[in-house]
Amino acid sequence: MIVVLDGSAREGEIAEVEKRIRNFGYDVYRSSGENSTVLGALGPAREDVRDALGTMPSVERVILASPPFMLVSRAFKQERSVFTVGDVEIGSGKVVLMAGPCAVEDRESYLQAAVAVKEGGAHLLRGGAFKPRSSPYSFQGLGEEGLKIMAEAKEMTGLPFITEVLDQHAVDIVARYADIIQVGTRNMQNFELLKELGQIGKPVLVKRGMSATIEEWLMAAEYLLSNGNHRVILCERGIRTFETTYTRNTLDLCAVPIVKELSHLPVFVDPSHGTGKWKWVPPMCLAAVAAGADGLLVEVHPAPKKALCDGPQSLVPEKFAQMVDLLKGVAQVVGRTM
Amino acid sequence: MIVVLDGSAREGEIAEVEKRIRNFGYDVYRSSGENSTVLGALGPAREDVRDALGTMPSVERVILASPPFMLVSRAFKQERSVFTVGDVEIGSGKVVLMAGPCAVEDRESYLQAAVAVKEGGAHLLRGGAFKPRSSPYSFQGLGEEGLKIMAEAKEMTGLPFITEVLDQHAVDIVARYADIIQVGTRNMQNFELLKELGQIGKPVLVKRGMSATIEEWLMAAEYLLSNGNHRVILCERGIRTFETTYTRNTLDLCAVPIVKELSHLPVFVDPSHGTGKWKWVPPMCLAAVAAGADGLLVEVHPAPKKALCDGPQSLVPEKFAQMVDLLKGVAQVVGRTM
Amino acid sequence: MIVVLDGSAREGEIAEVEKRIRNFGYDVYRSSGENSTVLGALGPAREDVRDALGTMPSVERVILASPPFMLVSRAFKQERSVFTVGDVEIGSGKVVLMAGPCAVEDRESYLQAAVAVKEGGAHLLRGGAFKPRSSPYSFQGLGEEGLKIMAEAKEMTGLPFITEVLDQHAVDIVARYADIIQVGTRNMQNFELLKELGQIGKPVLVKRGMSATIEEWLMAAEYLLSNGNHRVILCERGIRTFETTYTRNTLDLCAVPIVKELSHLPVFVDPSHGTGKWKWVPPMCLAAVAAGADGLLVEVHPAPKKALCDGPQSLVPEKFAQMVDLLKGVAQVVGRTM
Amino acid sequence: MIVVLDGSAREGEIAEVEKRIRNFGYDVYRSSGENSTVLGALGPAREDVRDALGTMPSVERVILASPPFMLVSRAFKQERSVFTVGDVEIGSGKVVLMAGPCAVEDRESYLQAAVAVKEGGAHLLRGGAFKPRSSPYSFQGLGEEGLKIMAEAKEMTGLPFITEVLDQHAVDIVARYADIIQVGTRNMQNFELLKELGQIGKPVLVKRGMSATIEEWLMAAEYLLSNGNHRVILCERGIRTFETTYTRNTLDLCAVPIVKELSHLPVFVDPSHGTGKWKWVPPMCLAAVAAGADGLLVEVHPAPKKALCDGPQSLVPEKFAQMVDLLKGVAQVVGRTM
Repeated sequence: MIVVLDGSAREGEIAEVEKRIRNFGYDVYRSSGENSTVLGALGPAREDVRDALGTMPSVERVILASPPFMLVSRAFKQERSVFTVGDVEIGSGKVVLMAGPCAVEDRESYLQAAVAVKEGGAHLLRGGAFKPRSSPYSFQGLGEEGLKIMAEAKEMTGLPFITEVLDQHAVDIVARYADIIQVGTRNMQNFELLKELGQIGKPVLVKRGMSATIEEWLMAAEYLLSNGNHRVILCERGIRTFETTYTRNTLDLCAVPIVKELSHLPVFVDPSHGTGKWKWVPPMCLAAVAAGADGLLVEVHPAPKKALCDGPQSLVPEKFAQMVDLLKGVAQVVGRTM
Repeated sequence: MIVVLDGSAREGEIAEVEKRIRNFGYDVYRSSGENSTVLGALGPAREDVRDALGTMPSVERVILASPPFMLVSRAFKQERSVFTVGDVEIGSGKVVLMAGPCAVEDRESYLQAAVAVKEGGAHLLRGGAFKPRSSPYSFQGLGEEGLKIMAEAKEMTGLPFITEVLDQHAVDIVARYADIIQVGTRNMQNFELLKELGQIGKPVLVKRGMSATIEEWLMAAEYLLSNGNHRVILCERGIRTFETTYTRNTLDLCAVPIVKELSHLPVFVDPSHGTGKWKWVPPMCLAAVAAGADGLLVEVHPAPKKALCDGPQSLVPEKFAQMVDLLKGVAQVVGRTM
Repeated sequence: MIVVLDGSAREGEIAEVEKRIRNFGYDVYRSSGENSTVLGALGPAREDVRDALGTMPSVERVILASPPFMLVSRAFKQERSVFTVGDVEIGSGKVVLMAGPCAVEDRESYLQAAVAVKEGGAHLLRGGAFKPRSSPYSFQGLGEEGLKIMAEAKEMTGLPFITEVLDQHAVDIVARYADIIQVGTRNMQNFELLKELGQIGKPVLVKRGMSATIEEWLMAAEYLLSNGNHRVILCERGIRTFETTYTRNTLDLCAVPIVKELSHLPVFVDPSHGTGKWKWVPPMCLAAVAAGADGLLVEVHPAPKKALCDGPQSLVPEKFAQMVDLLKGVAQVVGRTM
Repeated sequence: MIVVLDGSAREGEIAEVEKRIRNFGYDVYRSSGENSTVLGALGPAREDVRDALGTMPSVERVILASPPFMLVSRAFKQERSVFTVGDVEIGSGKVVLMAGPCAVEDRESYLQAAVAVKEGGAHLLRGGAFKPRSSPYSFQGLGEEGLKIMAEAKEMTGLPFITEVLDQHAVDIVARYADIIQVGTRNMQNFELLKELGQIGKPVLVKRGMSATIEEWLMAAEYLLSNGNHRVILCERGIRTFETTYTRNTLDLCAVPIVKELSHLPVFVDPSHGTGKWKWVPPMCLAAVAAGADGLLVEVHPAPKKALCDGPQSLVPEKFAQMVDLLKGVAQVVGRTM
C-alpha cells in the first residue's frame, strides 16, 4: 500500500504515521519528493488499514496499489530515479553508452577493446568474467582474473565498468571490483541472488528474463528495492518468440516507453543480445534511443571472428564509432544529450 | 533459381537463355538492372539445370536460391523497388505517412479526420470499409458506402487512400476505388486472395501475419510478384507473444532492417496495431523511422472514445501533428526526408 | 445475451419472448433442450434489455454472456452436439478416426491409401485437393480432379471424406463432393469464407489458427453457427511457439478439456500437423484420446518418402493399424468406444 | 565426442583409450552397457582426435556428437536410466506418482495431506519449504521448519519426499532432509546451482524452464551429469505461449516422447503448473501417461481455497484418488504398471 502524506506534514507527523503503519505489521519505506512525502507499506493490501490510516490528519490518501509492484512504481515515486556511477549520470537527460566485449578473454585484447570503445564514445565499459553458458563445456569466463583485467582497463581509461554475477558465492568479490553489477536474463528470477544484491552498496542492472512479462521484470527489481538497494537499472534484451531464423531474440522496444510510464527507474536496451547479429545493432540502437531509452549496452569486439563468446553479435570499433555519431543526432531530436 | 547474365549480354543472347530455361519447364521472369540483367527461373532448384545454364557464354552465374522466396529477394533485384501512388513516391528516400481512422464510420467524421491528418502531415489516407472482426456481432464496416466516402475524402484533400480487402468477391470493387489495397494480418496466408491481387493493377500492402515468420511473410509477397504484381509494400504490425497485459502485440522493429536486407520491397510499420495503445504510438513511430522504415501506417481519430473500432489505439490529430515534427528530425538524422 | 426460459413455458409464451427480443433489434436463435428452452439474442449485451426481459413470466433468467461467443457456448446449449456423417456419429461416445494422405497426388496411390486406412480402422477418409502452401511454387493440389478421386475412394470403401476449401470461389464445388469441409489453420480468421460456409448444408471442421487463442477459435465457430450451420467440429492442430527444432508446432492438448467445458461442439485433434513428425503421432494420438478428444485427424501415406506434401509427418498404414489397437484400449479406460 | 569401444575390449585396452583421450586434454566419462563400453570425451569435437582414436584397435567408432549434449544422450547411453529412491524405482516400467501441497504451510495440514495422498496412491510426497515467488511480499515458505515437517510426514507414511532448493547456501540443508531435490523452472539455467547439485549424493529433478527449448533443458541436465550426478529426472511443466486466458502455461506433452528418444533419463510431467487449474489436471495426467511419461508431479491440497500458494491448481484428495484409478488403466494399455 502507498500512503501519500499531506504536503505540509512535518517530520513528527510523518514519524507518527510510520509508527502506526508498523503497528499493523508492515515494513515502511519513505520516499521524499519535492512537494510531498510518500510512505510505502510493505505487505498485503488491507482495506481496514487503509481506512484507519486515512483518518489521520497528515494523510492525504492511501492507495491499495493494484499492480503487484510498489517501490519501483511511479505511484510511489513520481520523480525519475537518477544516480551517478563514477562521473556518469544514469537516468538523467543524458543517454548512457556501456560497451565492450561479451567476455574478458585475455588482458591485451580487453585493454585494446576498452581504449577503442572509449574513443568511440562509450561512458562505461562492459565485459564478462563469469559467463552463463548453456553448455557446461563452453568457456565459462576468467573469474577473478577477468575482474582484475577490467579494473586495470578502468584505471587506464577512467571509465567505470559493469559485469555480471551468476554465483551467490561470488557476490562479494564481484561487488569489490565492479561499478555496476549485472543480473543476466537467466537469473532474473533467481530470487536469492536478488535478495543478496539488494543488500550491497553497488548499483544493479537487471536484464529482462527472456520470457518475462513486464510485470515480472518489475517485480524482480522490486526484490532489490525492498531489500534496500534503490540504484537499479532495467535492461530490455529481447524476448523469446517463434521467429528463430533471422534473430536470436525479438527486441521488445515498446517495453521502453511502457516501463518508463510504470516506473521511475532508468531503462536501458541491449540490442546485441536482443538481435544476435551485429548488422542489426546500429538500427536497433537508433530505434531504442528514439523510443526513449536511457542508455544502451552494446557488444564491441576488435576481432569478432576470434571472440570466444557472441562474436556474431559484436560490432567492430569503427562501426561502433560511426553509430555513436548518428545516436547523438537522434538523442537531440527526442530532447536528450549524449 | 536465379540466373545472372553477363553485363555485356545483348537482347538476342538474353532471349536465348530465357528459351533454354523455359525448355527445362520453368517460367521465366526478367529483372533488368543498371549493370546487368537477372533472370528468375520459377520452379524447383536443380543442380543439372544450373550446370547446363552455367556453360552458356552470356551467363555469369546461376544461384540455387536457398531461401524459398525469389522474386522478392535482393539476389534477384539489387536495386530498391520504388513506385508512385498519385504524387507520392513509395520506397524512395522519403518517409511516407498513411493516416486516418481504423474504420470509416460515417461521412462527416471521416471527412473531418481526412482534413485533420492532411494538415498534420499525412501523405495518404487510410480507413476501413470492410473490417475483419473476431466476432460476427461486431461492426463489420460500411462496405461500398465506405469506399465512396474515402473517394470523396480523396477528392477533397488530394490524398490517395489505402483500404483493406477481405473478400475475394470484393476485390474488383475495392480495386476500383482504392489507390493501395491492404491485405490484413489474418489474410496474409489467404493464398487465393493473394493470387487474385497479383493480377490487379493496384499496389498492395501486405501486413505481416500475427504469427508469421519473416520468411512466410516474404513468401506471401512472392505470391503477388509471381502472379504479376510488383508494386508491393510489406508492413510490420506486431507479432503475438506471451506479453498480453500491456500491449496488444509485440512490435518487431528489427524486422525492418532484416527485410530491407533480404528484399528490395519497401517496408512500412503500423505501430497502432503493433502496440494497441495510442500512448506508445509516437515513440514506436520514432523508433520505426530510426530503424529505417520506408513509411508508417497510423490510426488517427478525432474522437477516439466514440470510435466503433480500435479507439484505444488511435491518436487525436494534435498528437499526430506533434509527432510528425519529431519524425522529420529523426528522418533527417538517418538520411531520409519526410 | 442468453435468455433461459422456464421449463414449463409453452410455445405461445416462447414466441412472445422471441418477439419481444426482436423488437429490441436482436436476431434470435432458439435452442430446445430436454428440460428447457434457451434463446440467444444476437447482438450487444444491454442491461436494460436484460431487466425488461427478466420481468416476463416465462423467463427464468437472462445471462449477459461475458465471453464473446454465444451460440457455441454451453451456457446456450448444455447438451453436447452430436450429428452423423454417413453412418458415422460425430460428438457421441465413439471416438472417430479420419485418416489418409495429406494431398491427393494420383488416383492409384490415393485408392490404395484409402483401402489401407479403412482396414486399419479409420471411419472417414481425409485428403487435400486444394493445398495451402507457403510457397507459390509448391504443389497446390489436383483441384476438382482430386475431389473426383476422393469420391471414387468413398464409393470403393464406403467411408465418407473430409477435404479442405481455401477459395471462396470453390465452396460450391467442394461442398458438392465432400462430406465434411475443412477450414485450415491459415483460414481460421478468413471471415468471408466462414460466412459462406455458414450457409451450406455440409458439416465444417475448423482447425485452430496456429496463433489463435481459444477464444478466437470459438469465435470462428460462432461465425458458422450464427450464419446457420450448426454441424461444426473444432480441431486442435498445434500452436506456434519458440520450440522449432524438434517439432513443427506445439500440440496444445489441454485445449481439449477446456473447449469441451466451454462449448457443446465436438473437439478433434490433428497430431500429424501438431507435431510434424510421424514418430510423435502415436503417443500424441493416445494422449489426445486420454484427454477426451472426440476424434483424430491423422495423416497416413503408403510411401511417405515419395509424398509431395508432408511426408515426414505421415504414418505408414502398418503403424496406423498398430496405433488403433492401443487407442481402443485408452478409449475404453476413459469411458468411450471406438 | 563419444567413443564406442569394441564389445570384446578388455579393461586394459579401455584404460589405454581413456589415457589417450585424456592426453588430448579431454575429461573422460565411461558408460558400461550390456554389450559394450562407451567413453564420453568432454570438450570440443575435433576431427583430428576422432581420426587418431579411430585407428586404435579396441575402438569401434567415434561420434562427433552433433547435439550439444552428450552424457544425457542415448548415443552415449542406450539403456534407460533407472534408479531407486527409498523403495521406489524411477525410470522403470512403473509410473511414479509424486503428490502433495504446493507449499508446506503448517505441520497439521501437511501431515493430513501426506496421509491422504498416500491413501490415494502416491509413491512420494511433494511440498515446498523454500518457495520461489514473483513478489517479495508473498509467502516464501517455512524454510528448515518445513523440511522437518516433511521429514515427519515421511516417517509417518513411509514415503520419501521431493522438495525444491532455490538458494545455493541452502543446498546442504535441503540435501540433508530431502530424498529428491527439485530445481524449479526459474532456476533451470542457474548454472552455479546446477554445478553444486552435480556434486551431492541425492537425485535431482530438473523442471523445464518456462521458455526453455528441449535442447537447453537437456543441457541443464548435462550440467548435473558432467559434474558427477547421474540420478537425474527431467520434468515438463508447461511452457509460456500467447494463450494466457484459460491456462497458466501450455503443457508440451510431445516433449515426453521426444526427450525419451533423445535421452536415457526418466521424464516426468507436472500438469498442475502446466495448466494452472485443477480441472485440467486429471485429463492432462491421463494424457501424460498415455504419451509415455515415467511419472507425475501433482499438487493435492485438502483445502485448496485456504492454500497460501497455488490453491486453484490443487486437486482435493478424493479427485486425486479417482484419477489414480483411471491412470492405472491407461498405464496398462501402454505397457506400464502403476
